[in-house]
Amino acid sequence: MNYFSSDFKLGILGGGQLGKMLLSETRKFDIQTYVLDPSAEAPSRIVCNKFFQGSLMDFETVYNFGKQVDVLTFEIELVNLEALEKLEAEGVKVYPSPATLRGIQNKGRQKAFYKDNNIPTSNFRLFENLKTLVLNCLEGKIPLPFVWKSTEFGYDGNGVKVVRNVEDLENLPDVECIAEDMVPFKNELAVIVVRNPKGDIKTYPVVEMEFHPEANQVEYVICPARIDDAVAQKARAIALEVSEKFNHVGLLAVEMFQTEDDEILVNEVAPRPHNSGHYSIEASYTSQFENHLRAILDLPLGNTDSKVAGIMVNLVGAEGFSGDVVYENIEKILTIDGVTPHIYGKRETRPFRKMGHVTIVDEDIDKARKIAEEVKGLIRVVSK
Amino acid sequence: MNYFSSDFKLGILGGGQLGKMLLSETRKFDIQTYVLDPSAEAPSRIVCNKFFQGSLMDFETVYNFGKQVDVLTFEIELVNLEALEKLEAEGVKVYPSPATLRGIQNKGRQKAFYKDNNIPTSNFRLFENLKTLVLNCLEGKIPLPFVWKSTEFGYDGNGVKVVRNVEDLENLPDVECIAEDMVPFKNELAVIVVRNPKGDIKTYPVVEMEFHPEANQVEYVICPARIDDAVAQKARAIALEVSEKFNHVGLLAVEMFQTEDDEILVNEVAPRPHNSGHYSIEASYTSQFENHLRAILDLPLGNTDSKVAGIMVNLVGAEGFSGDVVYENIEKILTIDGVTPHIYGKRETRPFRKMGHVTIVDEDIDKARKIAEEVKGLIRVVSK
Repeated sequence: MNYFSSDFKLGILGGGQLGKMLLSETRKFDIQTYVLDPSAEAPSRIVCNKFFQGSLMDFETVYNFGKQVDVLTFEIELVNLEALEKLEAEGVKVYPSPATLRGIQNKGRQKAFYKDNNIPTSNFRLFENLKTLVLNCLEGKIPLPFVWKSTEFGYDGNGVKVVRNVEDLENLPDVECIAEDMVPFKNELAVIVVRNPKGDIKTYPVVEMEFHPEANQVEYVICPARIDDAVAQKARAIALEVSEKFNHVGLLAVEMFQTEDDEILVNEVAPRPHNSGHYSIEASYTSQFENHLRAILDLPLGNTDSKVAGIMVNLVGAEGFSGDVVYENIEKILTIDGVTPHIYGKRETRPFRKMGHVTIVDEDIDKARKIAEEVKGLIRVVSK
Repeated sequence: MNYFSSDFKLGILGGGQLGKMLLSETRKFDIQTYVLDPSAEAPSRIVCNKFFQGSLMDFETVYNFGKQVDVLTFEIELVNLEALEKLEAEGVKVYPSPATLRGIQNKGRQKAFYKDNNIPTSNFRLFENLKTLVLNCLEGKIPLPFVWKSTEFGYDGNGVKVVRNVEDLENLPDVECIAEDMVPFKNELAVIVVRNPKGDIKTYPVVEMEFHPEANQVEYVICPARIDDAVAQKARAIALEVSEKFNHVGLLAVEMFQTEDDEILVNEVAPRPHNSGHYSIEASYTSQFENHLRAILDLPLGNTDSKVAGIMVNLVGAEGFSGDVVYENIEKILTIDGVTPHIYGKRETRPFRKMGHVTIVDEDIDKARKIAEEVKGLIRVVSK
């Protein structure tokens, strides 16, 4: 197949920042792209060859879009699965496959998959609705505290809640859900796996999420994770296994816990480029986006090693600010060596909206970590 | 000035591959761009916010385009200078400035500038037309061989010829020209300088052009150049001086000769991102394109150091092939670690047309050099 400067067309469902960063790679290789997104203001609307505005959850819209392309991928899991299945049946290459996505989209099914395949994960129980969960809880059948998760439509922390007592159950939505054991952990880790249809497979180094000591929010994604080699090797081996068992094609971000006794438990996966891999644009020999593209086109995979240490800081809208965005002190952080801001292209900021990220690279990871703190202390996403 | 996700507009004259790679940076920072190019098929037509088709040499076209933007830059020197001067006089920021461009566009003026400013360069004489040159030559007043250069409109080797005997004069065009002493040299080097309106200035490491032993064509651009530190320091100091004397803003690529006795002579300059800096996308902390953008927006300049060694191989159309392009063996080179092809997005290949480039990076420059040779032996730009 000739992809480069040819009539070949890649379709991307979703035109957010992940799609935008993927498009940077399709431009580098001059691969034609069609993008579908519900918003006329989507960050990807410019860099693609053709932009379509429409719902990602509507069967007809996704199906009609998909019929125009040779290979179809997505940058968000919340897409119409039935349309993907029909497209695949009719010969469009869909990567990751609808079958893989079906196993991941529903968190109950995802957890069951880990159990069925002997992949270490925390214990859980599935409840078909809120009432059954509450009854079981009142009867003392679910040890408190536990982690409640909606099985569907969760995104960026939506649909996840720590339940510490019965009162915490009161405001939960009446949906199918799982109750997971709460595991005390030392570290939250992630490994990005890339795999092509031929079955070539590689993992990126283990990254570590460093949390704010009080706010319990991820502050820094650090590559490589500051953990023992043996733990890192175990994490990478488990991530490889997860990707292979899912028969996954493209990027799979595997989020994991490192427990107090250095066990690795899989938390959940995202079948697409991932926030925890953004550091790779500056730090890796091959960025996660280039490798996703290589994988779904069945090209040889690129080197996942790092040139230098990388740390990523998310730029989210500051509390109390809504409207036309201003990146306060961005000129100040540009004075620091190894600092690269990525601005996603959303004109309006809102509290906690993901507006961009900043990558800090350095040969010395401790120096990068210090600079990351400096960057975090300086830049602020506010409005005019 | 708020450039990021704002109403600010950057205008770029020229929509070729240099513009395309610059646009990758404007997208990263979400800076609005307008692009003017004569071709509807220009590589930059997609990634900009607004594309205009029109002549870069036509006063009205350039002027009307420039009136719509806040800062104007160019990716090619052959643009209408009078329009730039009028735009600057009317308050549009034009970087590099028309005054700088005027000093560079005409090669006679450029050489005179070096002499006036005590910047080392080979000796030369200016002739207003071919007849005067021929007369002087026949009278033995110009020692043979010499390098003939048209003072205007030269590009990519056009307008340059080595004159070894009087017969070589026969097919020269009747234009203003210079005759330069031919200097025996050990190495052809280049240094890219970046400077902002505030006067902050940085140089990239010295790169070396390695020539094919028989074909006398540049085969590899190698960073860092494999030369003595003392020579490299001298080259960087001279490049800094050239940029400062020109009062140049943006990127300036300074091409130089290292003579047999390790003198550095300035050959010529290009006031824009340059082929000799393409390696920087993968190898440097800040690519030449990001630094050009930072410079013309008067932002702090990025670190010009390298993370790893970088070698660049140009992808030019193979002889004997014209028409729809095919990149032969591109999948094979993708199997090699540290290899990144850049495909400019020209559908049609022609003999010697610049279609793309490949960057090879590695911690070990000798290993990168070996891989570069392997890449060069594999990939071929042909037609269907």
